[in-house]
Amino acid sequence: MDIWFTEYHNKNVALSVRVKDILYRDKSKYQEIAILDTYDFGKVLVLDNTYQTTEFDEFIYHELISHIPLFTHPNPKKVLVIGGGDGGTVREVVKHDTVERIDFVELDEKVLEACKKYMPNLSCEMENEKVNIIITDGIKYVAETDEKYDVIIIDCPDPVGPAKGLFEKEFYKNVFKCLNDDGLMVQQSESPLYNLDLIKNIAKYLKESGFKIIMPYVYPMPSYPSGMWSFMLASKKYNPLNVDKKKIKKKIEKFNTKYYDEDVHTSIFLSSPKFLKEAVKEALE
Amino acid sequence: MDIWFTEYHNKNVALSVRVKDILYRDKSKYQEIAILDTYDFGKVLVLDNTYQTTEFDEFIYHELISHIPLFTHPNPKKVLVIGGGDGGTVREVVKHDTVERIDFVELDEKVLEACKKYMPNLSCEMENEKVNIIITDGIKYVAETDEKYDVIIIDCPDPVGPAKGLFEKEFYKNVFKCLNDDGLMVQQSESPLYNLDLIKNIAKYLKESGFKIIMPYVYPMPSYPSGMWSFMLASKKYNPLNVDKKKIKKKIEKFNTKYYDEDVHTSIFLSSPKFLKEAVKEALE
Repeated sequence: MDIWFTEYHNKNVALSVRVKDILYRDKSKYQEIAILDTYDFGKVLVLDNTYQTTEFDEFIYHELISHIPLFTHPNPKKVLVIGGGDGGTVREVVKHDTVERIDFVELDEKVLEACKKYMPNLSCEMENEKVNIIITDGIKYVAETDEKYDVIIIDCPDPVGPAKGLFEKEFYKNVFKCLNDDGLMVQQSESPLYNLDLIKNIAKYLKESGFKIIMPYVYPMPSYPSGMWSFMLASKKYNPLNVDKKKIKKKIEKFNTKYYDEDVHTSIFLSSPKFLKEAVKEALE
Repeated sequence: MDIWFTEYHNKNVALSVRVKDILYRDKSKYQEIAILDTYDFGKVLVLDNTYQTTEFDEFIYHELISHIPLFTHPNPKKVLVIGGGDGGTVREVVKHDTVERIDFVELDEKVLEACKKYMPNLSCEMENEKVNIIITDGIKYVAETDEKYDVIIIDCPDPVGPAKGLFEKEFYKNVFKCLNDDGLMVQQSESPLYNLDLIKNIAKYLKESGFKIIMPYVYPMPSYPSGMWSFMLASKKYNPLNVDKKKIKKKIEKFNTKYYDEDVHTSIFLSSPKFLKEAVKEALE
């Protein structure tokens, strides 16, 4: 049968995938949630008609949002993950033996519950004893908490609706406050082809919030608009280019990564497109 | 109005773009050719219902297929370009002042003519005095010619129909024969996510043909299936990682590249996904 799910990236471009079945569909206080079983992308989490996570390409996103910041910090013990209710980021963070506690702040409990049931490949570490799930708004959490972290990972959706505040200066100031003196953060930062002004703003706000090292990195992401996606790393002290590659190579032997390795760690920053590196450089001047 | 062009990447995934107008449509001996004017991708060359080139993302593909091999060779004078009737590759090759002659072999004269008329941003160097256009089959050309080149760029379509032979051992042997003793080649090599077996075969055939250095590189390519695309570089002598970055930086000042720079040149190989690097390594053992 020809049943298709289509996300309109904007009013002029659309990506469609053929659907086997609708496994879950509900509305929460915040959004419409669906989990589809598809032929090519495996199970797909769809939030408000937008591809959020697919089993086909989630390894790219989750390995890169986790291992780059966690191996940039020489000894991350306490990690805060904001968003990412599918559990993929937490699954990767748990692999780091230095990490003693992961505070996992997710706004929408229904996403968490749906993924726990229908996407076990992603949500498999939700019961891990290191993981402390906190159901609340990440913006509110960093504004109010007295906790301090080594690494903060902001696995946020697009900057619309309740997630808009995750891309504002006030939020970055609070993230800075919640990091130890040698802490660092990474944030999902949209498509360089479609959202360059947003990325420049993020860089500017991060600088104004006090971060010393601010660097974007880019990777192909099939299910996201334009297929070219980015993260922004912001650090108080450690530079991701100054890592011990041999140490990383040894540590990831048991990680079963498919995208990330010790060479990707540094080269992903340098291989990002010239137009993006220049735009961010300009924003930081 | 809602007029859409859709390419089905396979029977389960489709990428659609909203169309302003159909500028050109014809059938040649080899294929159906269309040039569409679209809202988001600018002008789009479509061959047999497949995105071939779009003004939106062609800079990524054409900069990387040209400048990586041409800056890996310290002094490329004679270049063979096989395929790429839109002219985008030739436009980039012409920028290199060391290059004295470009033999440009294209199978389908109709593609060339259509792009000359409707896609001048790409075909702008077709009249350049260094460019020698030869309308013939690239497979036949390398089998029969006595010419020797410094760099051969294979800007081929997908391995179906007449392009199938561009991915076979016999062809690579002839490419090897047509290269000087320090020559190198690069080929469009499909999606690592969808065509890993093909990529492994290419690597194997290149090794069997006598190439010493065989390395894939990966980049995001919005209009191509999966958005993750690759090139394969094969070299008799020069390693792309051993370049003089300062020299490249100076040379590209006037190139107006948007994706490529001296850091991309080397890091694009290292930042390619682990699963691809491992698959190619295995194929070469």
